[in-house]
Amino acid sequence: MRSSQLFTKTLKDAPSDEVAKNAQLLIRGGFIYKEMAGVYAYLPLGKRVLEKVIQIIREEMNSVGGNEISLTALQSSDVWKLSGRWDDEVMDVWFKTNLANGTELGLAPTHEEPLTKLMKSYIRSYKDLPVYPYQFQIKFRNEVRSKSGLMRGREFWMKDLYSFSRTQEEHDTFYEDISQAYFRVFERLGLGDLTYKTFASGGSFAKYSHEFQTLSPVGEDTIYLNKEKGIAINEEVYTDEVLAELGVTKDELEEVKAVEVGNIFTLGTKYSDPLDLKFTDENGESKSVIMGSYGIGPSRLMGLIAEHFADDKGLVWPEAVAPFKVYLVSIGEAATDKANELYEQLTTAGVEVLYDDRDERPGAKFADAELLGIPYRVTVSERLLEGGKFEFTPRSGGESILLTPEELLAKLT
Amino acid sequence: MRSSQLFTKTLKDAPSDEVAKNAQLLIRGGFIYKEMAGVYAYLPLGKRVLEKVIQIIREEMNSVGGNEISLTALQSSDVWKLSGRWDDEVMDVWFKTNLANGTELGLAPTHEEPLTKLMKSYIRSYKDLPVYPYQFQIKFRNEVRSKSGLMRGREFWMKDLYSFSRTQEEHDTFYEDISQAYFRVFERLGLGDLTYKTFASGGSFAKYSHEFQTLSPVGEDTIYLNKEKGIAINEEVYTDEVLAELGVTKDELEEVKAVEVGNIFTLGTKYSDPLDLKFTDENGESKSVIMGSYGIGPSRLMGLIAEHFADDKGLVWPEAVAPFKVYLVSIGEAATDKANELYEQLTTAGVEVLYDDRDERPGAKFADAELLGIPYRVTVSERLLEGGKFEFTPRSGGESILLTPEELLAKLT
Repeated sequence: MRSSQLFTKTLKDAPSDEVAKNAQLLIRGGFIYKEMAGVYAYLPLGKRVLEKVIQIIREEMNSVGGNEISLTALQSSDVWKLSGRWDDEVMDVWFKTNLANGTELGLAPTHEEPLTKLMKSYIRSYKDLPVYPYQFQIKFRNEVRSKSGLMRGREFWMKDLYSFSRTQEEHDTFYEDISQAYFRVFERLGLGDLTYKTFASGGSFAKYSHEFQTLSPVGEDTIYLNKEKGIAINEEVYTDEVLAELGVTKDELEEVKAVEVGNIFTLGTKYSDPLDLKFTDENGESKSVIMGSYGIGPSRLMGLIAEHFADDKGLVWPEAVAPFKVYLVSIGEAATDKANELYEQLTTAGVEVLYDDRDERPGAKFADAELLGIPYRVTVSERLLEGGKFEFTPRSGGESILLTPEELLAKLT
Repeated sequence: MRSSQLFTKTLKDAPSDEVAKNAQLLIRGGFIYKEMAGVYAYLPLGKRVLEKVIQIIREEMNSVGGNEISLTALQSSDVWKLSGRWDDEVMDVWFKTNLANGTELGLAPTHEEPLTKLMKSYIRSYKDLPVYPYQFQIKFRNEVRSKSGLMRGREFWMKDLYSFSRTQEEHDTFYEDISQAYFRVFERLGLGDLTYKTFASGGSFAKYSHEFQTLSPVGEDTIYLNKEKGIAINEEVYTDEVLAELGVTKDELEEVKAVEVGNIFTLGTKYSDPLDLKFTDENGESKSVIMGSYGIGPSRLMGLIAEHFADDKGLVWPEAVAPFKVYLVSIGEAATDKANELYEQLTTAGVEVLYDDRDERPGAKFADAELLGIPYRVTVSERLLEGGKFEFTPRSGGESILLTPEELLAKLT
């Protein structure tokens, strides 16, 4: 894409009420726009990043048998009353609204109840199980405070998968499979080394749930970590009993801040019982379906990646989620033809290029390239044309090098 | 995909309160699920159809310079008060809700106001124009009645593009360009012959707006049509004056029912003036930006396509939006290996196949193939194996024919 086709431009300042570094940088780069605290629009560059994060998660959910769907934001109260979560005292993040006829509706903060009800149309027999529907959807949560940019939204993107299994064993096997899929997601996003599967409180049907916590000084959670053993414990279950069970002692653990980037729960029959989701087993007996739920926040991940990799010049996107792979700059009139040609060559070869074709000083273009955090800057300048070379500059550090057209193409494709 | 991986199954009946044929068929086929009137979840098959409709629209919007974004559902009242549309008397489809601190918010039924405000960050000079941001987003409209299935939703998918231009001439040129893009969309969706650009009321800044109306007996709109001249007039502007201006007489026009599948509006400075969106022109003068808005409803289109092409056996998807191209059925134990092999061959060749690998009677499989409306059924049966042939049956009618593997591949790839 040419910069001239992009309606956004970099901004000198983020709104003064924006305190989160991720949102400040993303707003200055033109990735997002702040509608209100915790509510952000995605502009063309931001939409591209978000879609890449979503696509990575989608591929990994499909790899464990996920079936993509899309549930609704508007919710009638009936199923939530059956589970007891309609009450604002029980679930304190509801946005509620009304139909024209006065009927009260809610905006879904999560989807266990409506999906459990929906599955009653499709689950009858053991032959219909197990199944793993999931969705990418905008969730609404009426947070009292929302000051962490994309990392705690009132309106935000969520991937939620739900498992419906016949037995505890079948559930446990899937729980382990999706744990591995989650690790693959964080690995592909460049957060693998920093992300730990963390013991957290389990609810009525399991001793523990698990959170995937990424170490970060701006994390809202406190966890206790032993990196060598790969053991992490959320402070909510940091008790002598749990430590003994996991075979670690307090002096082996360090207290660190972390961001919850995913969570997985064994739900047992918490929702299938009140909503009466049963199946007939091989012996003709009626049994409750065993459920689990598995969340990842793509918009929170985008904020965390923005915040984690940034340096004092701006964003530094990992290649897997960068809005473009190459930021192409031409310097001087005489370089324009060559830059146009290279742009065509690279895009034809399938390389995603943002071509800064604006009539701007080189310094301004370089500063934008750095703020936007595109992985590789390629400069075509009059000075280097004679030697037939291009300048290749990795955003993540390291020296600029000079490459022939062939070397450049080999490096980028 | 194998049927056994799909958690939905065909249902004998739609909910008794569902009166729209499109929703009845889509629910029976397992494409959608009714959450409440006008609010539907998309199940795996329905999600595939919706995404194909969206992708066709996306390609055509990109072809006229569109820049994809994603605005927010939650809206603060400020900008809507400036335009005068916060008032429920003025815009009677608002869903409103409240932040935890009591501040009233709305759920966006459309996005002229927030986008106009957003563009103030990016439009300063004539060099920043024209621009064409667009989005696919869930809109919320608190309709009093919602009985037309996907064709009138309270929560539904909308593509809305907004144009920001320097002059009326620049606006007019784009208005014509996007009209052509709209025609291409409806053509690709199989509705080209049935869809007419229709004169409708224009508002304060233009004599007319235009609707794209698809002829349908279940349409909620009445238009007056001259097919030969390609002139269509919405009843709201069906006056002697308009007829004279368009050079047609009443006896040349037939009264027909139609579904509004798209609309395009010249907004002039209706929103840019109250929200103070200005630019500096080539002479240093400050001018108001000229705007337009352009909507298409992907979910409504999905409902209309479902309803329009259906026959007494079920859905009949045009190939461009079908969830799969081929419905593969094997009959008899001995055919299984050959069917598996063909499934691998076709999917490897990039053909989207739904492989009915269930342990079911052939009659049940054929009935499902027809209800789901997949364009081509391919049957692998013991009886035909010896001759090395497959049975190829188009869903849209015509005889089944026998094809060799080579002929089949040539036909499908």
